[in-house]
Amino acid sequence: MNYKNRVSDSFAQQKFMEFIGARIVNLDEGFCHLELPYRDELTQQNKFFHAGVVGTLADTAAGYAAYSMFKPDESVLSVEYKVNLLAPAKGDLLAAKAKIIKHGRTLTVCNVEVFITNGNATKLCAIATVTLIALKDYTK
Amino acid sequence: MNYKNRVSDSFAQQKFMEFIGARIVNLDEGFCHLELPYRDELTQQNKFFHAGVVGTLADTAAGYAAYSMFKPDESVLSVEYKVNLLAPAKGDLLAAKAKIIKHGRTLTVCNVEVFITNGNATKLCAIATVTLIALKDYTK
Amino acid sequence: MNYKNRVSDSFAQQKFMEFIGARIVNLDEGFCHLELPYRDELTQQNKFFHAGVVGTLADTAAGYAAYSMFKPDESVLSVEYKVNLLAPAKGDLLAAKAKIIKHGRTLTVCNVEVFITNGNATKLCAIATVTLIALKDYTK
Amino acid sequence: MNYKNRVSDSFAQQKFMEFIGARIVNLDEGFCHLELPYRDELTQQNKFFHAGVVGTLADTAAGYAAYSMFKPDESVLSVEYKVNLLAPAKGDLLAAKAKIIKHGRTLTVCNVEVFITNGNATKLCAIATVTLIALKDYTK
Repeated sequence: MNYKNRVSDSFAQQKFMEFIGARIVNLDEGFCHLELPYRDELTQQNKFFHAGVVGTLADTAAGYAAYSMFKPDESVLSVEYKVNLLAPAKGDLLAAKAKIIKHGRTLTVCNVEVFITNGNATKLCAIATVTLIALKDYTK
Repeated sequence: MNYKNRVSDSFAQQKFMEFIGARIVNLDEGFCHLELPYRDELTQQNKFFHAGVVGTLADTAAGYAAYSMFKPDESVLSVEYKVNLLAPAKGDLLAAKAKIIKHGRTLTVCNVEVFITNGNATKLCAIATVTLIALKDYTK
Repeated sequence: MNYKNRVSDSFAQQKFMEFIGARIVNLDEGFCHLELPYRDELTQQNKFFHAGVVGTLADTAAGYAAYSMFKPDESVLSVEYKVNLLAPAKGDLLAAKAKIIKHGRTLTVCNVEVFITNGNATKLCAIATVTLIALKDYTK
Repeated sequence: MNYKNRVSDSFAQQKFMEFIGARIVNLDEGFCHLELPYRDELTQQNKFFHAGVVGTLADTAAGYAAYSMFKPDESVLSVEYKVNLLAPAKGDLLAAKAKIIKHGRTLTVCNVEVFITNGNATKLCAIATVTLIALKDYTK
């Protein structure tokens, strides 16, 4: 099974992705682009995407950017992630683009840019750094 | 309106909190304890709480711990947050306990511990640090 | 006084920069490139640049990238910084290149890449994100 | 060789610690307290301890808190660290107290508090979170 299938399979098993309505837009080795359309259910008190949703999309994009480079018997887990919220996530569509910076034997580090599209305007609304670990036989 | 009412009102307006099923357990000036019962919709591929959900609960608890100390005309926004995932969030109930470390004129810093309860056992599954900003007349 | 002079003046007053031997290589509005030649005094137990030195150079580069965009009456202070160490900083020359991602009224966010040169080879050895605040009349 | 000796030996090999003048005040399994007296050479433009020095002391304290729990054949390396600067480090003595939060097989996570003493007053001036990795035969 190639990496695209492994990522699709794993993504489909993340019920939280289905619940919020996120989908994979693009995937390459070491790169993942996710998007998430606006819904009232995803907002904080000002009707912007909740900061937790922004972090979720960034972390998940990073996870699959990493997983695309892992060996077939390796699982991926986030070790830590850090999000800087640069502008209110006010708009119709949230997108996270994750790119692997370093793919090590044990740890992988990923940078993520999160964009918000409001009508015709798209802007960077957050950046994140995510550290991931490759685990063998994790669930056994 | 006292801080408890202000927090309850704001929390009730966060549709994402209702969507995932989070609730306020306890609130004091500079402290907030949230909890979130397990649901399949909140999981990643191994049926554990999604790392994004863990971060969401931590960030939100920090937001209200800060907001409880803010002046009535101040809004709260997360500037950045960082989550270290220490153990799989495998269990029935997730809880985030946020405590203000520094309440400054502009910025407030909060430490959060996230616990997972699985049957009779409760353990620390994540820690987070959140930086928040007080804004006047934010939505006008 | 233009931003280049303000940065040079401030840098010259940072005794810690002189102590470790760091210097400004390049400066533009929103960008700062610092470098630091190897000395035994800067190492950890394996004779690599100490992780604290890596963080110091990253934080300082970010500070001056931000300061280059600030108004003449504004001081710059780091609010928080986060460093991911990607590879051992083993080599002759450490360099930090900082670029402003978001310059806000109060807060500025900066990404930094830190490179290590060992003989003819240069590689990325760390990335950092730094949040800075503009303060008026800070020392008065 | 017990952990106290292993830590002392390693600390003595960190030339950067000697260079800045840091010393071990206290060490226990999973805990390390370092201190660093004021010197002009350690300051930024306002004569406060440089943020890079604050981060250095926090990272190093975390490293030895972790190393005290490692097996004799394991080396310690920082994977990432994050510092929140809560107050200016203006004073005579800087102290970092690091405590292990999670000691895993591969990764260890440490919380650090950094205090500044100015005359008779001591206050918390920074907090840090550090992720460390245990490596076997690192330098061979």
